[in-house]
Amino acid sequence: MKAYQHMTKEELLTLKKELEAQFEDVKSRKLSLDMSRGKPGADQLALSMGMLDVLNSSSDMKDDAGVDARNYGLVDGLPEAKKLLADMVGTEPENAIVFGNASLSIMFDTISRSMTHGVMGGTPWCKLDEVKFLCPAPGYDRHFSICEYFGIEMIPVEMSEDGPDMDVVEKLVQEDAAIKGIWCVPKYSNPQGYTYSAETVERFARLKPKANDFRIFWDNAYAVHHLYEEKERQDTLPDILSLCKEAGNPDLVYEFVSTSKVTFPGSGLSMMAASEGNRKDILNHMRIQTIGHDKINQLRHIRFLKNMDVLREHMNKQGALTLVKFKVVWDALEEELDGLEIGKWTYPRGGYFISFDSLEGCAKAIVAKAKEAGLTVTPAGATYPYGKDPKDSNIRIAPTYPSVDELALAGRLFILCVKLISIDKILENK
Amino acid sequence: MKAYQHMTKEELLTLKKELEAQFEDVKSRKLSLDMSRGKPGADQLALSMGMLDVLNSSSDMKDDAGVDARNYGLVDGLPEAKKLLADMVGTEPENAIVFGNASLSIMFDTISRSMTHGVMGGTPWCKLDEVKFLCPAPGYDRHFSICEYFGIEMIPVEMSEDGPDMDVVEKLVQEDAAIKGIWCVPKYSNPQGYTYSAETVERFARLKPKANDFRIFWDNAYAVHHLYEEKERQDTLPDILSLCKEAGNPDLVYEFVSTSKVTFPGSGLSMMAASEGNRKDILNHMRIQTIGHDKINQLRHIRFLKNMDVLREHMNKQGALTLVKFKVVWDALEEELDGLEIGKWTYPRGGYFISFDSLEGCAKAIVAKAKEAGLTVTPAGATYPYGKDPKDSNIRIAPTYPSVDELALAGRLFILCVKLISIDKILENK
Repeated sequence: MKAYQHMTKEELLTLKKELEAQFEDVKSRKLSLDMSRGKPGADQLALSMGMLDVLNSSSDMKDDAGVDARNYGLVDGLPEAKKLLADMVGTEPENAIVFGNASLSIMFDTISRSMTHGVMGGTPWCKLDEVKFLCPAPGYDRHFSICEYFGIEMIPVEMSEDGPDMDVVEKLVQEDAAIKGIWCVPKYSNPQGYTYSAETVERFARLKPKANDFRIFWDNAYAVHHLYEEKERQDTLPDILSLCKEAGNPDLVYEFVSTSKVTFPGSGLSMMAASEGNRKDILNHMRIQTIGHDKINQLRHIRFLKNMDVLREHMNKQGALTLVKFKVVWDALEEELDGLEIGKWTYPRGGYFISFDSLEGCAKAIVAKAKEAGLTVTPAGATYPYGKDPKDSNIRIAPTYPSVDELALAGRLFILCVKLISIDKILENK
Repeated sequence: MKAYQHMTKEELLTLKKELEAQFEDVKSRKLSLDMSRGKPGADQLALSMGMLDVLNSSSDMKDDAGVDARNYGLVDGLPEAKKLLADMVGTEPENAIVFGNASLSIMFDTISRSMTHGVMGGTPWCKLDEVKFLCPAPGYDRHFSICEYFGIEMIPVEMSEDGPDMDVVEKLVQEDAAIKGIWCVPKYSNPQGYTYSAETVERFARLKPKANDFRIFWDNAYAVHHLYEEKERQDTLPDILSLCKEAGNPDLVYEFVSTSKVTFPGSGLSMMAASEGNRKDILNHMRIQTIGHDKINQLRHIRFLKNMDVLREHMNKQGALTLVKFKVVWDALEEELDGLEIGKWTYPRGGYFISFDSLEGCAKAIVAKAKEAGLTVTPAGATYPYGKDPKDSNIRIAPTYPSVDELALAGRLFILCVKLISIDKILENK
């Protein structure tokens, strides 16, 4: 196919007319499609229905140590739940605190606690003139929303296939004591699906931040979310907690994980893993905030997922269903856009997203155009701090929630919008 | 029986010797008994085991409106969960936000949010020189811990059978803009089991606090926790939200409730009910903190508890089991202490506690003595702000967790300690 840039004005105008007719046709069908959020599809949810059978009215409700999961107690979670969640990210159970139904709340609460009480005895951030976070971008919009909510200044750091630009990260954290944290989704990153290289992770562990209370927020959300069953097609990530310890920086990192996309979103377990010092700091706070989290749901997860072998098998099934949907999108993008030079997209081996980069200055218009025809895509810019994508080109595609048929339709419609908006952009300069 | 005060020194010394022998005998049995926390007994937990059967792998996981409870969404809860929890406290579902597994976390988060972001656009409390709370005392230790954690100054207000001393409450909140809240357990209060009178509730609704951002923290924890099945033996409480609205103070109150002691502690549902203005303020915060709470557990509760008729029947069974245990304690207290004039105790008609007042200056010593023989009671002073009971006389007795046999033993041991310490106290002045 011929690149749009190389087409004449007349060719483009003719093409535009054709595409507009197609668009009007689709629009008239009054579709309602959604590729905006990383929500598992109904087919994925069905895989976890067995978890609702592992506990019933005749079940033994005690854990291996004899603790009755139905009553108050054990603020940091059942030991077997700690073990299972620690295994998911390859850390030790003694580093773990099991929380409630989602890791986002742990991250929010961690920032909130730092604002009101500081980090391990440090000055509460709300007493400081400025607090800044590094934000590898594109990244996860909900991380950025937490910063914005607490008035934390966000500094974008460019992402590459190996992770954030570590030269920039190292320089900034060494220079500026107001920089208190960095948001990382180190494996199958949101939205690009990149996994940090071993070198990147090692450089993180060896960071020498000027602020004692600087922390890496290591959101290992997609730790076990591979698309492919074959080990050699799965990304791997070194264990940052042990690397930090070896580097003499044991307190540098908070790691987060959850089963939101392993079992049920909203009804999963979440975990934070951290050094002994951090854990103590956090538990002092937790003991005031809560008497404990839902241990029956911990028991349910333990008895359903059992161990990493069973969990991996479960995740292979999830991956197979997800892969089908990623392929629908990739196939459409390849068939329709290859050679046109109006967009690039990623080929992650896991996670929940495909990251699409349009021509500069087109993303917002593409998303608006899609909306016009009934397709919701994550708002353009959402993947950047303050919702401001400097190039206005990044769009996050979340293929898991729609059915395969809906997705095929959604993919084609999205591509149609990309083509139309790209033609307009190119015509501006012809 | 003869009052200890009227006994001669010699009589007291003889009695002490006898009691000390009994104490040494009990001590030698190396007991481990616990009357310290309001934890349901195993017999009560068994009543809710049916809740684990209402959902299984073949269940329809959609609510009445067709929302799939397994996926993300509906940050304020399933409508039927709102209805059920609103009914528990007699308010309207539109006032409700359903939260996670415990109302303590909602209260903590509410204070935390007020610290960092203020109340409905007001100055964040962390920017103020002083923030104070009124604390009807004796009261719930975990309320006081939240204040202490956030550096909020606590002002005790005396409790009577009708609730807090409203003359004092009205005067203080009108005068001092630094007073931002008051902790209330208005029904079957912790620890005395008092229910606020209709007049007290009405005076609360008509409060004219100097601070716009003053809120009543109405922790209606024991709304449905009656000991007796007969309506005429159950306390009633007017609906404060509608009274506040009628009084032109719609935003004055946050009401909290949970099913922690209806179904399973730690695996229940919690709710906050508040005016539209408050709800909007809270939801703005919640949308950053979480994607949503556990809706599968909401569905489980809806299908198990169904409606107020079923819930009341369930609570009648809970009440019957609780009453047996309260009676064991009351019987022992009456048999052993009536006429001795060394202690008073309450006869609540619901809730989880019996409040015991020893002679002044004896509570700490009684609790320590009990501990010596293997009985854990809530630390003396815990029911007062900063753990300081000015009279050192209040002790909270929590009868629900031990078995009936353990409780009989625990009650006698407690009474033995009361007698011994009271004799020492009286001897000081003989």
